[in-house]
Amino acid sequence: MTDLHYLTPERIDLQRQRVVIEGDEFHHLSRVLRKGEGDVIRITDGNGLCADVRIERCGRSSIEGSILHFRRVPRPGTAVTIAMSMLKSHHRFDLFLEKATELGVSRIMPMITSRTVSNPVPEKIDRKLLRWKSVVLAASRQCRRFHVPEILEPVSFHDALRLQGYDCRLIPHESSVKSATIDVVGRKLLFLVGGEGGFAPEEVHLAAEAGFLPVSFGNTVLRAETAGLFAVAMVRAALLEHGNPDQWL
Amino acid sequence: MTDLHYLTPERIDLQRQRVVIEGDEFHHLSRVLRKGEGDVIRITDGNGLCADVRIERCGRSSIEGSILHFRRVPRPGTAVTIAMSMLKSHHRFDLFLEKATELGVSRIMPMITSRTVSNPVPEKIDRKLLRWKSVVLAASRQCRRFHVPEILEPVSFHDALRLQGYDCRLIPHESSVKSATIDVVGRKLLFLVGGEGGFAPEEVHLAAEAGFLPVSFGNTVLRAETAGLFAVAMVRAALLEHGNPDQWL
Repeated sequence: MTDLHYLTPERIDLQRQRVVIEGDEFHHLSRVLRKGEGDVIRITDGNGLCADVRIERCGRSSIEGSILHFRRVPRPGTAVTIAMSMLKSHHRFDLFLEKATELGVSRIMPMITSRTVSNPVPEKIDRKLLRWKSVVLAASRQCRRFHVPEILEPVSFHDALRLQGYDCRLIPHESSVKSATIDVVGRKLLFLVGGEGGFAPEEVHLAAEAGFLPVSFGNTVLRAETAGLFAVAMVRAALLEHGNPDQWL
Repeated sequence: MTDLHYLTPERIDLQRQRVVIEGDEFHHLSRVLRKGEGDVIRITDGNGLCADVRIERCGRSSIEGSILHFRRVPRPGTAVTIAMSMLKSHHRFDLFLEKATELGVSRIMPMITSRTVSNPVPEKIDRKLLRWKSVVLAASRQCRRFHVPEILEPVSFHDALRLQGYDCRLIPHESSVKSATIDVVGRKLLFLVGGEGGFAPEEVHLAAEAGFLPVSFGNTVLRAETAGLFAVAMVRAALLEHGNPDQWL
């Protein structure tokens, strides 16, 4: 399967059919993959563009190429957003980002709940966002996603309760008895996922009052990052069962 | 929720209603959790036993206790076995073990396919098995499983094709168009999951000839360990949808 190379939109001139590749992607193409003049590569802007590009000039620090043809890959009709409590373990949060991206998440909102331990200062948030985006980009490259998941700035639990624009808003919680039969096809779903200590009972109560549906993820306890990736896996599995995988990605 | 402590069967004398706790579990109980005489703890043999034990003597290197009451947790009616290609990355294989355990796998068979890079000598296999078992035990402790997943010795792909005793045998493969509508409730399922390079086309062909059902896991490429954990997640999701979570664990 063809490798996919991610360029920022300002590097892609669709009108003049030109691209310029610099930085990490340049390094990867020229030094690792040893691509050169005449080779054809596939690029995306991570926002649905799929373009085949012929390399025309391979310099010391940049590649220039011409777009042979391009198309827009439609955004999947089913979209999963996970508002995920930040975790004490960076490693486990990164793991969630990687697996959720592979499994098809659309948008991730780091969340601060009453039991969230990690609550970094704004300067640290910026650095974290950069790292999170690089993890999601690496995972997108791995699974060749034309739509890279969005990562938004951290939200508070109370702000998460007020998020609008979703067809179905869910809060998985171990005390819930409702099993998770959710109509997913073509819908916009929002899951709130708690951190290492789960949600406080008061939070589950508030979420239910705000119209969130409490769902059970099963009898055994899932770690926070596993609950997050299971939410995405559950939707992927339901779409596959409906024979509707291209609704997905 | 009560912590669960795992003892090897020879430490548990159900007739005399006595247990002896040594080694890591002793250390964890006495040094980390600071349990002492009179405290009641919950133990399992990892094979379905659930017993509440009162600590009667806490020595320098062992704890002795008496069993207050015990019951047998029935083995779940639905059982997922994953024959999983060994991976070049130990880290990613361990990750698969941890997540599959949390999500409810019953049995794991490391597998050697034509594209499996890791093919350790027998002495190394023994060491690997020890580590794999400790990963699975740690994950079982985390999610409080009374039935610890089995890890068998590595099998060849050809031996995996001949495995009997399953109601449904599946091989996920990206070239497959069949979506994964599988009847799971109360059934014994076997999935073959390829390694970093996936299966060779010949292997998919042989599996189909041997009666395995090729299934698609979706349009985007999943890493090997993600495919393995997704197989388990898919079954968990299907059981939840059928309102049948206690068939699970």
